[in-house]
Amino acid sequence: MKSKSKIVKTTATDKPLILVTNDDGVMAPGIRALAKAMCAIGQVVIVAPDKGQSGMGHAITINQPLRLTKVEYEDGLEAYQCSGTPVDCVKLAVDIVLHRKPDLCVSGINHGSNASINVIYSGTMSAAVEAALEGIPSIGFSLCDYRYDANFEHGISYCVSLAQMMLDNPVPEGTLLNVNIPSLPKDKIKGIKICRQANAKWVEEFDKRKDPRGVQYYWLTGRFVNKDKGQDTDEWALKEGYVSVTPVQYDLTAHHAISFINQNWKIS
Amino acid sequence: MKSKSKIVKTTATDKPLILVTNDDGVMAPGIRALAKAMCAIGQVVIVAPDKGQSGMGHAITINQPLRLTKVEYEDGLEAYQCSGTPVDCVKLAVDIVLHRKPDLCVSGINHGSNASINVIYSGTMSAAVEAALEGIPSIGFSLCDYRYDANFEHGISYCVSLAQMMLDNPVPEGTLLNVNIPSLPKDKIKGIKICRQANAKWVEEFDKRKDPRGVQYYWLTGRFVNKDKGQDTDEWALKEGYVSVTPVQYDLTAHHAISFINQNWKIS
Repeated sequence: MKSKSKIVKTTATDKPLILVTNDDGVMAPGIRALAKAMCAIGQVVIVAPDKGQSGMGHAITINQPLRLTKVEYEDGLEAYQCSGTPVDCVKLAVDIVLHRKPDLCVSGINHGSNASINVIYSGTMSAAVEAALEGIPSIGFSLCDYRYDANFEHGISYCVSLAQMMLDNPVPEGTLLNVNIPSLPKDKIKGIKICRQANAKWVEEFDKRKDPRGVQYYWLTGRFVNKDKGQDTDEWALKEGYVSVTPVQYDLTAHHAISFINQNWKIS
Repeated sequence: MKSKSKIVKTTATDKPLILVTNDDGVMAPGIRALAKAMCAIGQVVIVAPDKGQSGMGHAITINQPLRLTKVEYEDGLEAYQCSGTPVDCVKLAVDIVLHRKPDLCVSGINHGSNASINVIYSGTMSAAVEAALEGIPSIGFSLCDYRYDANFEHGISYCVSLAQMMLDNPVPEGTLLNVNIPSLPKDKIKGIKICRQANAKWVEEFDKRKDPRGVQYYWLTGRFVNKDKGQDTDEWALKEGYVSVTPVQYDLTAHHAISFINQNWKIS
């Protein structure tokens, strides 16, 4: 993979234009598997971070300038790396690389689950959210296997068929999909379940250490705790061996809390 | 303001324990105004970033260790600065500084609006979301004035009364408040409106430049576009001179899109 600084304008074809991004970086096996798979249904352009950006959430880069570089990619795919966050990648892709909205944005395949509350910490999902915000049909894909050399082929046919359904009949405006694939061989995956986000969370357990000068520092670690017993959640579906498809929205309004306040608080 | 490395365990009092954080950094005038105001209703502990962290969204620091340092603060307030993101600050505050959940978390006062879609980019709001995730009643406050020397006193009485209402009668579990204060003198602020998040967004306009070596780089800039004409939105309330109070949730499930998929997609 060699770097070039010139941004070449994408040539138009009859195929739908598919933007591929992620948070594990442009070189990660997960995005390479996804980009190759998307070639079956569209013209693929990759714009992804030049390094791992896991846990970046919906961060944007406002205090530093951004670099965007064309990179030579396998199978001759058109690919760019960006010095910023996953959300920056989507913004740059639309504005600087593609000069138009792609027909679909797919983010991933993430190395590790983004089910349940992970959706808000995930750079992969935040890139997908940003695309949806720009009015682009959008899906984030994750494999429940954190390993660099995880097998992304097992679930890849689900990525292709869900992407095709999104192209044919996109979900309502303001929504997108959070798709998680269990870490199972293809013949063990039972199918797809449409889910809600499980009400689970991380419990922090900081790892305290002292540096060679004797000064304390902390590594963020944690335990994932799911007390949600619902059989309609993404966590339940994954545990049962299904691909979980959770529709996500970026309107965060808690309408039931509006009613609560109107009934219980004395607002002047 | 002087740094010390020792973390002193917070002493208990009868007053409710209030954690104060932000994304503009521990030294920002906005957090100083908020911390001082909260002293009227509780015992205040400040844990905030050691530098500006605007636009960090729900980012967490997983690839670097974190530093946490006690700092001498005005009025003798107990304050700590953290090398990480606003979300890291909340996690460290609960786990390392307070050794318990505070009774309330307030984040801000942010220098600039976090109404509408800004909620997902904002470090200030993400810190408040993180506290809510941990089961802590939580409010993010923002003043619609980006200037460093903005006047935080005009709206401060609203911060105190909303914080007190949250202590007395917290909003339902899984929700928190996004409070935005118009940049108006106190006597021009008309009161409080309970709102929904306006359906508005940023339209990117990257500023392209060349560095001294002739290589292209990009600054992220943008225009805020609000096409939502609703008179129940945060943007509308602020424009009319009200403090907007938008209840926010971190369950991102788009339930209407679940129905859409079940009706329109052929899922095997």
